[in-house]
Amino acid sequence: MPRPPVAHPLPPSTGTPPAPPSEPAAVPAAVAAAARVLGGPTGLGTTALSLLSLADGAQPGCAPSAPPAPPPAADPSAVAPSEPVVVSEPAVAPDPRRILGGPSGLGTASLSLASPASLASPASSALTSYRPPPEPAPAQPAEGQAVPGLYHHPVPEPDPVRVEEVSQRIKRWAEDEVQLYPEEWEGQFDGFSIGRYMVGCHPDAPTVDHLMIAARLMVAENAVDDCYCEDHGGSPVGLGGRLLLAHTALDPLHTTPEYAPAWEESLGSDPPRRAYRSAMDYFVRMATPSQADRFRHDMARLHLGYLAEAAWAETGHDPEVWEYLAMRQFNNFRPCPTITDTVGGYELPADLHARPEMQRVIALAGNATTIVNDLYSYTKELASPGKHLNLPVVLAERGQLSERDAYLKAIEIHNELMHAFEAAAAELAADCPLPSVLRFLKGVAAWVDGNHDWHRTNTYRYSLPAFW
Amino acid sequence: MPRPPVAHPLPPSTGTPPAPPSEPAAVPAAVAAAARVLGGPTGLGTTALSLLSLADGAQPGCAPSAPPAPPPAADPSAVAPSEPVVVSEPAVAPDPRRILGGPSGLGTASLSLASPASLASPASSALTSYRPPPEPAPAQPAEGQAVPGLYHHPVPEPDPVRVEEVSQRIKRWAEDEVQLYPEEWEGQFDGFSIGRYMVGCHPDAPTVDHLMIAARLMVAENAVDDCYCEDHGGSPVGLGGRLLLAHTALDPLHTTPEYAPAWEESLGSDPPRRAYRSAMDYFVRMATPSQADRFRHDMARLHLGYLAEAAWAETGHDPEVWEYLAMRQFNNFRPCPTITDTVGGYELPADLHARPEMQRVIALAGNATTIVNDLYSYTKELASPGKHLNLPVVLAERGQLSERDAYLKAIEIHNELMHAFEAAAAELAADCPLPSVLRFLKGVAAWVDGNHDWHRTNTYRYSLPAFW
Repeated sequence: MPRPPVAHPLPPSTGTPPAPPSEPAAVPAAVAAAARVLGGPTGLGTTALSLLSLADGAQPGCAPSAPPAPPPAADPSAVAPSEPVVVSEPAVAPDPRRILGGPSGLGTASLSLASPASLASPASSALTSYRPPPEPAPAQPAEGQAVPGLYHHPVPEPDPVRVEEVSQRIKRWAEDEVQLYPEEWEGQFDGFSIGRYMVGCHPDAPTVDHLMIAARLMVAENAVDDCYCEDHGGSPVGLGGRLLLAHTALDPLHTTPEYAPAWEESLGSDPPRRAYRSAMDYFVRMATPSQADRFRHDMARLHLGYLAEAAWAETGHDPEVWEYLAMRQFNNFRPCPTITDTVGGYELPADLHARPEMQRVIALAGNATTIVNDLYSYTKELASPGKHLNLPVVLAERGQLSERDAYLKAIEIHNELMHAFEAAAAELAADCPLPSVLRFLKGVAAWVDGNHDWHRTNTYRYSLPAFW
Repeated sequence: MPRPPVAHPLPPSTGTPPAPPSEPAAVPAAVAAAARVLGGPTGLGTTALSLLSLADGAQPGCAPSAPPAPPPAADPSAVAPSEPVVVSEPAVAPDPRRILGGPSGLGTASLSLASPASLASPASSALTSYRPPPEPAPAQPAEGQAVPGLYHHPVPEPDPVRVEEVSQRIKRWAEDEVQLYPEEWEGQFDGFSIGRYMVGCHPDAPTVDHLMIAARLMVAENAVDDCYCEDHGGSPVGLGGRLLLAHTALDPLHTTPEYAPAWEESLGSDPPRRAYRSAMDYFVRMATPSQADRFRHDMARLHLGYLAEAAWAETGHDPEVWEYLAMRQFNNFRPCPTITDTVGGYELPADLHARPEMQRVIALAGNATTIVNDLYSYTKELASPGKHLNLPVVLAERGQLSERDAYLKAIEIHNELMHAFEAAAAELAADCPLPSVLRFLKGVAAWVDGNHDWHRTNTYRYSLPAFW
């Protein structure tokens, strides 16, 4: 029987941003160098970061992944598990909290990793025995309340100069380059506050051009969701065909000269496809081929998630909680944090990205940050036509909980996922303290923090339910 | 106005296998070494191949990819295109036809690359001006006619010892490990001839254990298709939910301890999920993390393709030919050839796999080999309930062609795609003559050849239409 959820009282607003964490203690020279680079002043050029990425190439300091578990039924003639490639472990294991929690010179939020001493057991199991201590009331800017009891990290106010520049440029792109919306939707576009969003989520972007990569993709993803799946004329029926054709704007069709022109023409035929095509064109120019491949995979996951959600809407299927959570791992913000290295002007090497531990970190982060959306958009979705599934709604249905108890339980699930993410990230940082890995983990965490802050402050779109 | 299709007469059967191509002429020492390794006796241990893969790590001999085209509408504040990473070009450009067309000691079919002199223009354009010379009548085993006029390469008869061993072991797996089918479907399983299929498609597999990796995945993929999408109770409505949940058997859910057990239990709840789960468990033990990631991406593409096909079936949408070809690029054999390195016991490095030229080769090969399925299963699909889309059916509808002319046109489209694939592969082999690249290209080609041969000889499943 799960514990009844606890309602945290609304914290008083104090208006003072939190003090930055103290300077790291003595650490090995190489690690100190990495910390200086990662924690250095904003506007660090990409050159130094590229050098770091090249230095990663030999991958000297990564502990091997755990070998996969044997398959359930023994095949008597099965081959012995192959040895994973072993690389030498680092001579000294640096304290990842020092590295990831360094000064916020790059504009990152102070990153609170779950402190190992406070975990009852290792990251991947037995989190049911761990209950986080009550959050001290964080100081937040006055506009926009955080969901009470939601575990999150405040972020510094995004740089207003960058916010303004991104806001101007993304609007020019939307109107002039891709004809994204008719005039009457301009207010909705402005209300999305994409500039603030992307600046807050990518504090380490070297230039506004880098931020624009993220901005166009985010806008394009929302256009597809709005136009194909949601309120502006979307429908679950036939969605599979529409999404596949849109996906080809990201992952192109290779066909004969007779048929290629009609396909190319189709990419300009509606706002979602124009947006995907253009955003992808810009992205590919700034990304490595492996980063582009990673993005296509994450977008394929997203589209699969949309199609599962649509299938259930069409059949009126009420998913079990675990089914909903599975769908939501795919219908997920994942493609947003996973471009953090491209937007940051460096590269997490493909082989490191593919490691099971990194994949787990990414999935947990994506799941936590996506449930933030469930929580902040709860009242908006209650007001929209039909029954829009989100975690509180599914919990109420399946757990036979009141709306309020379901919402509070959803907060708990979110918090567990956040702690699991942070613990997994700390463990990976300790096992694999390469600069690109550390920076990527920091970037994912920063994206999660920024995503929460955008939701919290976007009072145009979101308002909290009256449960407190 | 497209040229009217030409019907090729049925070739006479001669019963003699083609002579292997002559020995390669003098080539640089490193290339000769690669040719000896790739062309060496069957049963070449994986050790030497692993050394080759490690040697790839520095990627010294790959010409840079062409920089991506600038985006359609100029953004005045756009950043100048970033320089792609330049790596040194090889001192001597070896003739890729010699390497890829070497003696078939590894069991590969003689690989006929489109000879550069016979191409009117570079690979990626203007293939409409190229018409291949008429195929000399190939010698084929007596059972199973090839589609007349279909450009393909004969393959040596698969090793019957391996065929028998795979057939026995895959049946044990299907029945004992995953309880794949009720007794009454055993005949269908046998009729699929998975042993012959995989041995024919993976001539360079070091051991039967390697072949089993491919066999389980192929069987699992067919189980999902049969049970969820097609004849044995599948339906387009609600498919999105089913496929997503099945996909989590390949790409796991990361969630809280409260909900993980129900998800884990779900993976054992029906044959498709048991098959996916088990096949993936074995695959992951034999694959690198990057290979596993690549496979998940290709399976996500496959599932998106299924969902587009299902959407059109549900809405009765008659796609344009280009739309159909787009869907078919995703609902595609692609995840089968792309595991050729795992099954071969080596690795195509992720960064090379991600290169646009390699992605194009893979897509063209997948598209060609998948249309082979359209052609051989044409009569089977005409006989099945409802209207099953395939290339001849769509061409007849959209091109207002007779069934016969549409079928012949589909053969032409297939042939164009095959030639485009072979030209793109030859170009990539010349630009990037690294052993893993060459071996992978050869492996993809061998898979395509083997897939054709399985279709040709599977008279249990397929029969040709009476158009000649």
